[in-house]
Amino acid sequence: MKISQKDLGIKIGIDPSSASGRMNHYETGRHMPDLDTLKKLAKELDVPVNYFFCETEENATLACLIDKLDDETKRKLIQLLENKTEF
Amino acid sequence: MKISQKDLGIKIGIDPSSASGRMNHYETGRHMPDLDTLKKLAKELDVPVNYFFCETEENATLACLIDKLDDETKRKLIQLLENKTEF
Repeated sequence: MKISQKDLGIKIGIDPSSASGRMNHYETGRHMPDLDTLKKLAKELDVPVNYFFCETEENATLACLIDKLDDETKRKLIQLLENKTEF
Repeated sequence: MKISQKDLGIKIGIDPSSASGRMNHYETGRHMPDLDTLKKLAKELDVPVNYFFCETEENATLACLIDKLDDETKRKLIQLLENKTEF
Protein backbone atom coordinates (compact mmCIF):
# COMPACT_ATOMS: atom_id res chain seq x y z
CA MET A 1 0.00 0.00 0.00
CA LYS A 2 1.70 3.15 -1.19
CA ILE A 3 -0.45 6.15 -0.50
CA SER A 4 0.29 9.21 1.60
CA GLN A 5 -1.79 10.13 4.65
CA LYS A 6 -2.87 13.23 2.80
CA ASP A 7 -3.95 11.42 -0.37
CA LEU A 8 -5.85 8.84 1.65
CA GLY A 9 -7.63 11.66 3.47
CA ILE A 10 -8.55 13.34 0.19
CA LYS A 11 -9.81 10.03 -1.22
CA ILE A 12 -12.31 9.72 1.64
CA GLY A 13 -13.55 13.25 1.14
CA ILE A 14 -11.52 15.37 3.55
CA ASP A 15 -10.81 18.87 2.23
CA PRO A 16 -7.28 18.89 0.68
CA SER A 17 -6.24 21.86 2.84
CA SER A 18 -6.82 19.91 6.07
CA ALA A 19 -6.36 16.30 4.91
CA SER A 20 -2.72 15.97 5.96
CA GLY A 21 -3.28 17.36 9.46
CA ARG A 22 -6.45 15.43 10.16
CA MET A 23 -5.03 12.14 8.95
CA ASN A 24 -1.90 12.72 11.01
CA HIS A 25 -4.01 13.26 14.13
CA TYR A 26 -5.83 10.01 13.45
CA GLU A 27 -2.63 8.05 12.90
CA THR A 28 -0.95 9.35 16.04
CA GLY A 29 -4.10 8.71 18.07
CA ARG A 30 -4.57 12.36 18.98
CA HIS A 31 -8.10 12.21 17.59
CA MET A 32 -10.26 9.21 16.88
CA PRO A 33 -12.14 9.32 13.55
CA ASP A 34 -15.92 9.10 13.82
CA LEU A 35 -17.58 5.89 12.65
CA ASP A 36 -18.46 7.27 9.24
CA THR A 37 -14.81 8.23 8.61
CA LEU A 38 -13.64 4.83 9.88
CA LYS A 39 -15.98 3.11 7.41
CA LYS A 40 -14.69 5.22 4.52
CA LEU A 41 -11.06 4.52 5.48
CA ALA A 42 -11.78 0.80 5.78
CA LYS A 43 -13.43 0.70 2.37
CA GLU A 44 -10.57 2.62 0.79
CA LEU A 45 -7.94 0.37 2.37
CA ASP A 46 -10.00 -2.82 1.77
CA VAL A 47 -9.91 -3.82 5.45
CA PRO A 48 -12.75 -4.38 7.93
CA VAL A 49 -13.42 -1.51 10.37
CA ASN A 50 -12.43 -3.72 13.31
CA TYR A 51 -8.91 -3.92 11.78
CA PHE A 52 -8.19 -0.44 13.12
CA PHE A 53 -8.83 -1.61 16.68
CA CYS A 54 -6.76 -4.79 16.67
CA GLU A 55 -4.06 -4.55 19.29
CA THR A 56 -1.54 -6.97 17.81
CA GLU A 57 -0.18 -7.53 14.31
CA GLU A 58 -1.50 -11.10 14.37
CA ASN A 59 -5.02 -10.03 15.33
CA ALA A 60 -5.00 -7.40 12.57
CA THR A 61 -3.84 -9.92 9.93
CA LEU A 62 -6.48 -12.41 11.08
CA ALA A 63 -9.22 -9.77 11.01
CA CYS A 64 -8.45 -9.12 7.33
CA LEU A 65 -8.22 -12.81 6.41
CA ILE A 66 -11.45 -13.66 8.24
CA ASP A 67 -13.34 -10.80 6.65
CA LYS A 68 -12.75 -12.41 3.25
CA LEU A 69 -14.21 -15.79 4.23
CA ASP A 70 -17.81 -16.70 3.46
CA ASP A 71 -20.21 -17.20 6.38
CA GLU A 72 -20.20 -20.98 6.13
CA THR A 73 -16.40 -21.10 6.37
CA LYS A 74 -16.51 -18.68 9.30
CA ARG A 75 -18.91 -20.96 11.13
CA LYS A 76 -16.61 -23.94 10.51
CA LEU A 77 -13.69 -21.92 11.84
CA ILE A 78 -15.67 -21.01 14.96
CA GLN A 79 -16.33 -24.70 15.58
CA LEU A 80 -12.66 -25.50 15.03
CA LEU A 81 -11.56 -22.84 17.52
CA GLU A 82 -14.16 -23.81 20.10
CA ASN A 83 -13.01 -27.41 20.03
CA LYS A 84 -9.26 -27.01 19.99
CA THR A 85 -6.68 -24.30 20.16
CA GLU A 86 -3.84 -25.96 18.26
CA PHE A 87 -3.37 -26.60 14.57
CA MET B 1 -23.95 -11.64 30.48
CA LYS B 2 -26.61 -10.15 32.71
CA ILE B 3 -25.79 -6.56 33.49
CA SER B 4 -27.79 -3.44 32.75
CA GLN B 5 -26.47 -0.66 30.53
CA LYS B 6 -26.49 1.59 33.57
CA ASP B 7 -24.56 -0.82 35.82
CA LEU B 8 -22.00 -1.44 33.08
CA GLY B 9 -21.56 2.31 32.72
CA ILE B 10 -21.08 2.74 36.45
CA LYS B 11 -18.55 -0.11 36.50
CA ILE B 12 -16.38 1.72 34.00
CA GLY B 13 -16.51 4.92 35.98
CA ILE B 14 -19.37 6.92 34.47
CA ASP B 15 -21.24 9.02 37.03
CA PRO B 16 -24.36 7.10 38.14
CA SER B 17 -26.61 10.06 37.29
CA SER B 18 -25.61 9.96 33.61
CA ALA B 19 -24.59 6.30 33.17
CA SER B 20 -27.91 5.09 31.77
CA GLY B 21 -28.21 7.88 29.19
CA ARG B 22 -24.61 7.74 28.04
CA MET B 23 -24.59 3.98 27.69
CA ASN B 24 -27.86 4.11 25.78
CA HIS B 25 -26.38 6.63 23.35
CA TYR B 26 -23.41 4.33 22.80
CA GLU B 27 -25.58 1.27 22.23
CA THR B 28 -27.88 2.98 19.75
CA GLY B 29 -24.91 4.47 17.93
CA ARG B 30 -25.93 8.05 18.62
CA HIS B 31 -22.49 8.69 20.11
CA MET B 32 -19.29 6.71 19.72
CA PRO B 33 -17.35 6.16 22.96
CA ASP B 34 -13.81 7.51 22.96
CA LEU B 35 -10.97 4.99 22.85
CA ASP B 36 -10.39 5.08 26.60
CA THR B 37 -14.06 4.25 27.25
CA LEU B 38 -13.97 1.49 24.62
CA LYS B 39 -10.95 -0.06 26.36
CA LYS B 40 -12.70 0.04 29.74
CA LEU B 41 -15.86 -1.53 28.28
CA ALA B 42 -13.82 -4.23 26.55
CA LYS B 43 -11.98 -5.08 29.75
CA GLU B 44 -15.22 -5.21 31.74
CA LEU B 45 -16.93 -7.45 29.16
CA ASP B 46 -13.78 -9.55 28.56
CA VAL B 47 -13.79 -8.92 24.82
CA PRO B 48 -11.15 -7.30 22.57
CA VAL B 49 -11.83 -3.67 21.56
CA ASN B 50 -12.15 -4.69 17.91
CA TYR B 51 -15.18 -6.81 18.94
CA PHE B 52 -17.28 -3.63 19.06
CA PHE B 53 -16.54 -2.92 15.39
CA CYS B 54 -17.24 -6.35 13.94
CA GLU B 55 -20.06 -6.11 11.44
CA THR B 56 -21.35 -9.68 11.59
CA GLU B 57 -22.09 -12.07 14.44
CA GLU B 58 -19.53 -14.53 13.03
CA ASN B 59 -16.77 -11.91 12.88
CA ALA B 60 -17.55 -10.87 16.47
CA THR B 61 -17.44 -14.45 17.74
CA LEU B 62 -14.17 -15.07 15.89
CA ALA B 63 -12.62 -11.87 17.27
CA CYS B 64 -13.27 -13.10 20.81
CA LEU B 65 -12.01 -16.63 20.14
CA ILE B 66 -8.87 -15.38 18.40
CA ASP B 67 -8.07 -12.93 21.16
CA LYS B 68 -7.71 -15.89 23.56
CA LEU B 69 -5.18 -17.74 21.39
CA ASP B 70 -1.46 -17.47 22.04
CA ASP B 71 0.70 -15.77 19.39
CA GLU B 72 2.14 -19.02 18.07
CA THR B 73 -1.33 -20.46 17.48
CA LYS B 74 -2.41 -17.21 15.83
CA ARG B 75 0.53 -17.46 13.43
CA LYS B 76 -0.41 -21.05 12.58
CA LEU B 77 -3.98 -19.94 11.95
CA ILE B 78 -2.75 -17.16 9.66
CA GLN B 79 -0.79 -19.73 7.63
CA LEU B 80 -3.83 -22.00 7.50
CA LEU B 81 -6.08 -19.18 6.23
CA GLU B 82 -3.50 -17.96 3.74
CA ASN B 83 -3.18 -21.42 2.22
CA LYS B 84 -6.79 -22.50 2.06
CA THR B 85 -10.23 -21.16 2.81
CA GLU B 86 -12.05 -24.40 3.61
CA PHE B 87 -11.92 -26.62 6.67
